[in-house]
Amino acid sequence: MPQLPTYDDVAAAAQRLQGQAHRTPVLRSSTADRLLGAQVFFKCENLQRMGAFKFRGAYNSLAKFSPAQRKAGVIAFSSGNHAQAIALSARLLGIPATILMPLDAPQAKMDATRGYGGEVITFDRYTQDREQLTVQLAAERGLTLIPPFDHPDVMAGQGTAAKELLEETGPLDALFVPLGGGGLLSGTALSVRALAPQCKLYGVEPEAGNDGQQSLRAGRIIDIPTPKTLADGAQTQHLGKLTFEVIRRDADDILTASDAQLVEAMRFFAERMKMVVEPTGCLGFAAARHAGLPLAGLRVGVIVSGGNVDLARYAQLIGANAS
Amino acid sequence: MPQLPTYDDVAAAAQRLQGQAHRTPVLRSSTADRLLGAQVFFKCENLQRMGAFKFRGAYNSLAKFSPAQRKAGVIAFSSGNHAQAIALSARLLGIPATILMPLDAPQAKMDATRGYGGEVITFDRYTQDREQLTVQLAAERGLTLIPPFDHPDVMAGQGTAAKELLEETGPLDALFVPLGGGGLLSGTALSVRALAPQCKLYGVEPEAGNDGQQSLRAGRIIDIPTPKTLADGAQTQHLGKLTFEVIRRDADDILTASDAQLVEAMRFFAERMKMVVEPTGCLGFAAARHAGLPLAGLRVGVIVSGGNVDLARYAQLIGANAS
Repeated sequence: MPQLPTYDDVAAAAQRLQGQAHRTPVLRSSTADRLLGAQVFFKCENLQRMGAFKFRGAYNSLAKFSPAQRKAGVIAFSSGNHAQAIALSARLLGIPATILMPLDAPQAKMDATRGYGGEVITFDRYTQDREQLTVQLAAERGLTLIPPFDHPDVMAGQGTAAKELLEETGPLDALFVPLGGGGLLSGTALSVRALAPQCKLYGVEPEAGNDGQQSLRAGRIIDIPTPKTLADGAQTQHLGKLTFEVIRRDADDILTASDAQLVEAMRFFAERMKMVVEPTGCLGFAAARHAGLPLAGLRVGVIVSGGNVDLARYAQLIGANAS
Repeated sequence: MPQLPTYDDVAAAAQRLQGQAHRTPVLRSSTADRLLGAQVFFKCENLQRMGAFKFRGAYNSLAKFSPAQRKAGVIAFSSGNHAQAIALSARLLGIPATILMPLDAPQAKMDATRGYGGEVITFDRYTQDREQLTVQLAAERGLTLIPPFDHPDVMAGQGTAAKELLEETGPLDALFVPLGGGGLLSGTALSVRALAPQCKLYGVEPEAGNDGQQSLRAGRIIDIPTPKTLADGAQTQHLGKLTFEVIRRDADDILTASDAQLVEAMRFFAERMKMVVEPTGCLGFAAARHAGLPLAGLRVGVIVSGGNVDLARYAQLIGANAS
């Protein structure tokens, strides 16, 4: 197992990201403050380049490539934000990018990835083994694989969002972070333990896919079938080996939010904060609001992780039964 | 006619607004840059308190009240953002607020205004004269009237958005600003002429209601019937006496945008910048994109004025024919 990243790696990532990633705004809402009885600080990674925090980890990883790695190129597999993050970062750094996507991935996501200059290779996920295909392609072409979360450079890059947040707000009492494979939560943990050691740190998963919660309680990584949830960015089946180690060392607990709570939060963000947030990006606020933790009078951070949601689908979700 | 406000009034307003108004973020989008062949800076007043720049002018006006005025209270007429801006500002300053709204104003807007602590008085706009009713109420109760745009303190307050923008970006080559009654454009003009005198300044109206454009060309205020347009914040029938004087002195031109262009821009903001923007708030970007001005290679500012749009209506507008 590679060494776990440290806060020094996050600080180094922040240097690499300067002028490349947006320093996203920390927004406030008096309605959110009232709902929670707390001071709430939203770190808005939906306003990050390509619409999600994923750009941070992808760019940091690629920026560390050796000249030989740069020349040969990067390979990634993803049907979501990681694909676009790698494609965009690779273009900015002049590195060829190959992205493996399932044949039935949404056309819009394939187009977006190609739009950023990535070469998309499709596979049939019912007959072909993705990992094997990736390893084979990587070997044939000499490509470096950057996985979506379980990689020290990805984790360190994701940690820069919380670093920016805490530098702007000062110490917080609690921080709520969406949790899929654990890249964002583990990176955040490095920043929190360095900059605000007393802050309670909570990962938040979809109710239907609480493998992280189960893993934390069992003390080992638990595997689940792909969960059915609106939070498509958190449909991972298990945490990573590295992310789990950091999370179990540094996170205080893992909470869950229901799909109904995510839709409520999506509407809240649209109506009160004028932001488009994807279901996965709503996990933190949904749990802060509904998980029953005593937050009154506290300074509470919420990481809004992304805003990439198909527009027609988004309209459907916020429009239905809206007042 | 009261004296026209100056940039000194804008600077004084900025002092009053410190810690009260959000310093809204200036956001970038590489897609917008590509579309315009320019560097585009969006000043996001949809992320302002109560969802629009209107808070700036309202708060500035009320903060200047004498003790006697504060005690007696403020009166305003509006069915839109100005009502909420006055109600919220009044609550923050402990001033009683009376808001005159048409009987058939959307329930959501009445509720929002009441939610901020304002007393809503309704009138029948087919049988009752609004101005007369306002003057009568103001006299009876000793209230101070703050109109939605044609007032030096309102204009100076609105100018603080452009002041913040220019302080953050440095000089711009062109700036596009939504135009209804002219409060935002005239206030912006004061900041632009003081901080970036070479910057071209454009007001943008809905195509269906180009009274400002007509007025600028005629050299006098032109009155039109209430225009039919999605841009409900720019359905004014004429500019104000004060706003017109500043606009004809300081603005370079007035452009228009069609409703179809506004919807296109709403979708752009949702899809690429993850922001909810109301139709009126889209005027600036729509004209920057479609009015045919040569912007290639320039540094271009766009004021996104607000994000207050009924959620069901919004979902309808961005969802229809969305990919």
